Amino acid sequence: MKWLNFEIDGVLHCGALENGQVAPLQQGCLSQVLPDLDSKKTAVRKDDAIAISDVTLRQPVIRPGKILGIGLNYAAHAAESVSIIRRDQQKAQIWFNKQSTAANRPGGAIHLPRVSEQLDYEAELVVIIGKTGRHVPAERAMEIVAGFACGNDISVRDWQRASQTMMMGKGFDTHAPFGPCLVTPDEVGDLAGLAIRGYVNDELRQEGVLGDMIASVPEQIAHLTTAFTLEPGDVIFTGTPAGVGAGHTPPKWLKAGDRLRVDIENVGILENTVVDEPETARLG
Amino acid sequence: MKWLNFEIDGVLHCGALENGQVAPLQQGCLSQVLPDLDSKKTAVRKDDAIAISDVTLRQPVIRPGKILGIGLNYAAHAAESVSIIRRDQQKAQIWFNKQSTAANRPGGAIHLPRVSEQLDYEAELVVIIGKTGRHVPAERAMEIVAGFACGNDISVRDWQRASQTMMMGKGFDTHAPFGPCLVTPDEVGDLAGLAIRGYVNDELRQEGVLGDMIASVPEQIAHLTTAFTLEPGDVIFTGTPAGVGAGHTPPKWLKAGDRLRVDIENVGILENTVVDEPETARLG
Repeated sequence: MKWLNFEIDGVLHCGALENGQVAPLQQGCLSQVLPDLDSKKTAVRKDDAIAISDVTLRQPVIRPGKILGIGLNYAAHAAESVSIIRRDQQKAQIWFNKQSTAANRPGGAIHLPRVSEQLDYEAELVVIIGKTGRHVPAERAMEIVAGFACGNDISVRDWQRASQTMMMGKGFDTHAPFGPCLVTPDEVGDLAGLAIRGYVNDELRQEGVLGDMIASVPEQIAHLTTAFTLEPGDVIFTGTPAGVGAGHTPPKWLKAGDRLRVDIENVGILENTVVDEPETARLG
Repeated sequence: MKWLNFEIDGVLHCGALENGQVAPLQQGCLSQVLPDLDSKKTAVRKDDAIAISDVTLRQPVIRPGKILGIGLNYAAHAAESVSIIRRDQQKAQIWFNKQSTAANRPGGAIHLPRVSEQLDYEAELVVIIGKTGRHVPAERAMEIVAGFACGNDISVRDWQRASQTMMMGKGFDTHAPFGPCLVTPDEVGDLAGLAIRGYVNDELRQEGVLGDMIASVPEQIAHLTTAFTLEPGDVIFTGTPAGVGAGHTPPKWLKAGDRLRVDIENVGILENTVVDEPETARLG
């Protein structure tokens, strides 16, 4: 099943996607029903379905409680990232937060910050948590997963490198787009063989298979919940394969007008466009 | 003015504190009125005031949208922390997130994790954001600050050191206590000369003045909002002076039963007690 948030005339709804048609479930957002998505299948109003091209998609969780990201989780990407962080010095999983205010929608504009020219992409599988979990063993981790989406872990490399915690370069406004839908695990199937690809202007830049993750999705959830509680609507960016802009010589930084695409087999296609940061100053 | 969240018979209220008496403003939490606290002064129901000893205090923001922490922001603490991170290799401000699920109340129990024996305290001034801000210049930063509180940036040192991003060791459940009140800037006055002290079991461990911060509160807000939007209810832990457990030889780790106190002049006293992590496993 594919679930999604969408707007019609500025009003937020959630619903299900089937054959290019969006069938509404209710007004409001998917977060309100995440823990019991399964039971909502029959409540979808198929008679009211409209073409997906007639709605504005929003990300599957409008404002996640947490957005967590793991670093250097594919070996080939770790090798290309020695200028940022050295994987061989790190035994544990490497985690950072993207700020909850960075959440962005499918089709949403990605800001090229005024303070940097080193904007980069990272095609990633995103996990959306559906149930509360603490001390969840890896073998039961999938029980708290509501579904998957595509994500682009947009990174500002000079800001990321400026502090070893990496956090400032990961959380710029608009830099956590994910979607287009929440696809339930039964529909995605076994992750191991699924291809993940990242494109810039239709040029293939990143390619890998999800089975190449160093820490698997269950291992990530087990590690995180050893320390803290995951809750419905929390979102996990699970790492990116090789081919990011910073991995090229010279680096291939993003510029305004670039079109980004993340394509994951059985999960979907997420597209975003880079724009120069508009007037964002705000005070009060 | 001192504002606070509190419970009576399990029901959450917010109100004002004066002379040991809590005068209610309304049911619900302070977050709902943060942007216009000033205008609420006259709406406080002084006739319904009750003794602070008769209520259960909650933290001034029940569930912050973000909890941000700065590392090594006092020179003497940076010097004692070379085993964790070397300040001289870092030019930029060093930021991490504490997870929003880590928020804890005045008097709340701090969990000594089952997975670590290296539990540590960090007495800190906490900033509570009251208005939305992006690209806020330092000279106007105080316009988005609703007030201050005491905070204890509880840290699990082996987990913090295991990854250079520090994040996993900072976000354990219960490890972000702050309060007891939100004290408005006019009542706190000039930060520079105010003493901050951290105690374990009535033993003075940390002592400094807020003016010794390397990056001031306005400089922190300017830096953060260059990258992302701060919103009402976001919370900033502004760094700790020297004297943490990890800074002693041998280290003085916390143990169950330890009583923690953070005392900041004009801001208040925050007290918490360490307990062995209870049965926290949860799945669904």
